[in-house]
Amino acid sequence: MAVLAVPALETAGQPATGTKLSMVVFSGDMDKLIAAFIIATGAAAMGMEVTMFFTFWGLQAIRKPVRSGTGVFGKMLGLFLKDINGVGPSKLNMGGMGRWMFKKMMTAKGAASLPELRQTAIDLGVRLQACQMSLDIMEIKREDLIEGVEDVVGVAAFLENASQSTTTLFI
Amino acid sequence: MAVLAVPALETAGQPATGTKLSMVVFSGDMDKLIAAFIIATGAAAMGMEVTMFFTFWGLQAIRKPVRSGTGVFGKMLGLFLKDINGVGPSKLNMGGMGRWMFKKMMTAKGAASLPELRQTAIDLGVRLQACQMSLDIMEIKREDLIEGVEDVVGVAAFLENASQSTTTLFI
Amino acid sequence: MAVLAVPALETAGQPATGTKLSMVVFSGDMDKLIAAFIIATGAAAMGMEVTMFFTFWGLQAIRKPVRSGTGVFGKMLGLFLKDINGVGPSKLNMGGMGRWMFKKMMTAKGAASLPELRQTAIDLGVRLQACQMSLDIMEIKREDLIEGVEDVVGVAAFLENASQSTTTLFI
Repeated sequence: MAVLAVPALETAGQPATGTKLSMVVFSGDMDKLIAAFIIATGAAAMGMEVTMFFTFWGLQAIRKPVRSGTGVFGKMLGLFLKDINGVGPSKLNMGGMGRWMFKKMMTAKGAASLPELRQTAIDLGVRLQACQMSLDIMEIKREDLIEGVEDVVGVAAFLENASQSTTTLFI
Repeated sequence: MAVLAVPALETAGQPATGTKLSMVVFSGDMDKLIAAFIIATGAAAMGMEVTMFFTFWGLQAIRKPVRSGTGVFGKMLGLFLKDINGVGPSKLNMGGMGRWMFKKMMTAKGAASLPELRQTAIDLGVRLQACQMSLDIMEIKREDLIEGVEDVVGVAAFLENASQSTTTLFI
Repeated sequence: MAVLAVPALETAGQPATGTKLSMVVFSGDMDKLIAAFIIATGAAAMGMEVTMFFTFWGLQAIRKPVRSGTGVFGKMLGLFLKDINGVGPSKLNMGGMGRWMFKKMMTAKGAASLPELRQTAIDLGVRLQACQMSLDIMEIKREDLIEGVEDVVGVAAFLENASQSTTTLFI
C-alpha cells in the first residue's frame, strides 16, 4: 500500500478534516473492486471517515471461500459466487487468464493485491458493511462473511450515512 | 416494499429533512435497476426528495412493452430493447434463466419485484425523468414511455438538480 | 455540441456559481464515455468547474492511437486497448457493428461524436487527469496520452478535488 498511496499523499493537499466518503460496492469485478479499495484506503489514509456498503455481486469482496446457499437456487448461486481471490476483471477475463495476468502486472509494479488492499482498509478503520437484503435474497449467512465486516445493515442506514457524506460513489 | 424498507427504517436514524437524492440511471440491467429502485424508494420513505434521470439503457425501466423506432436502426434497436419485465441481470443471465431465477429468489424472500418497486417509487413521489437526447438518438417517443414519467429533460436540468442534492449516484 | 447542450441550457435554470463536478471515468465503453462527456460538457457550459479523472479502461478515452506497453503483458494489453475512435458500446457491440450503428444514429440526429465531445470538453476548460497508478500498471506512458491531458495524478489528488465538489460521479 505504501508504494501506492504515500507518494500521492505527499504531492497532494489534504481534504478538510471531518470529510466523509461513502460507497455502494455493487460490482464484484476484480478491476472495479481494486478501484473501490484504492479509493477507500487512499481516503482513509488522508484522514477521511470511510464506509463501504457491499451489495449484490460486491458481497464477493467480503465473502469467505465457502459454499453458501440453503435452497436449490441459493446453492446454485453459491457455486458461482467467488471470494476476493477468485473474482475476475470486467473485461479480458478469458476464462481466468485475465485475472492471472492482472495479478502479475500489479505485482511487477509493486502494487498491493486485492486481498492486501482489503486488509489495509480494515487496518485503516474503513467500515465494511453488508447489505441485509442482498444477504437474504442470495442466501448468504453472516458467518459466510469475513471477520472484518462491522455491520449488516439495510439501505436506510446506508442512506443516512450517505446524506452526511461529502462524497458518495456507486461502484 | 413494506417487507424491505420499513424494518430498516425502524432500526436506522433519519437523514436531515430537506436532503435530496439524485440518480443518473444509465444501466438497463435487472440487478442494477433493482439496486436503483431500492435506494430510491428507501430514500423517499425516509422523507428525502428523490429524482431518477433515466438515460441510454436505463430507459428500458420506464418504457412500455412496445416496438419503438422510426428509421431502420431505431427499429432494430427497438427489437432489442426490453421493458421492465424483460430486463435480465448483468451476470448469469444465461439466455433468460438468470432473470427467472432471480425473480424466484426474490419472491421466495418476500422482496418486491422490479415492477412493484417502480410503482412504489411513483406512489412515494419519486420523480422519474427521461433524458431528451437519449430518446432522440434511440428513436423512442414520449408515448413509448409509461405514464409515471414526469418530465423529459436535458442534461442541464439534471445537473441543476444534482448541484442541489446531498447525494448523487451514477448507476 | 450546440445542438445538444444549448437548447437544454435555455430551458433549465443555472446551478449556483462556484459549483464543482468531479468524475472518476473508470469505464472505457463507448456509451458510458458519451454519457460522461455529455455531462462534463453540459456542466462546463453552465459555468461549473469540471474535473475528469481517467483510470483503468477509461484511459482509452485519452489515449493516442498508439501501441503501448513495455513488457510482454503490457504489450498484449496494448494490442487490446483502443483509442476514443475505437471503443465500442457496453451492449450490442456485435464485433464492431454496434459501434458503427450508434455512430450513424448519433450523426443522423445531429449529435456530437465522442471525439467532438472530448474536444468540446477541452475547449470549455474541463480538466482531464490521468491516474498515475493505472498508467504504471497498464504500462501506458505520458506520451501515449493526448495533449489535452492536464495532469497525471494519484488518487489523493482526485479525493481532495472530490471533497470540494458539489457532485462526484463514478462512471
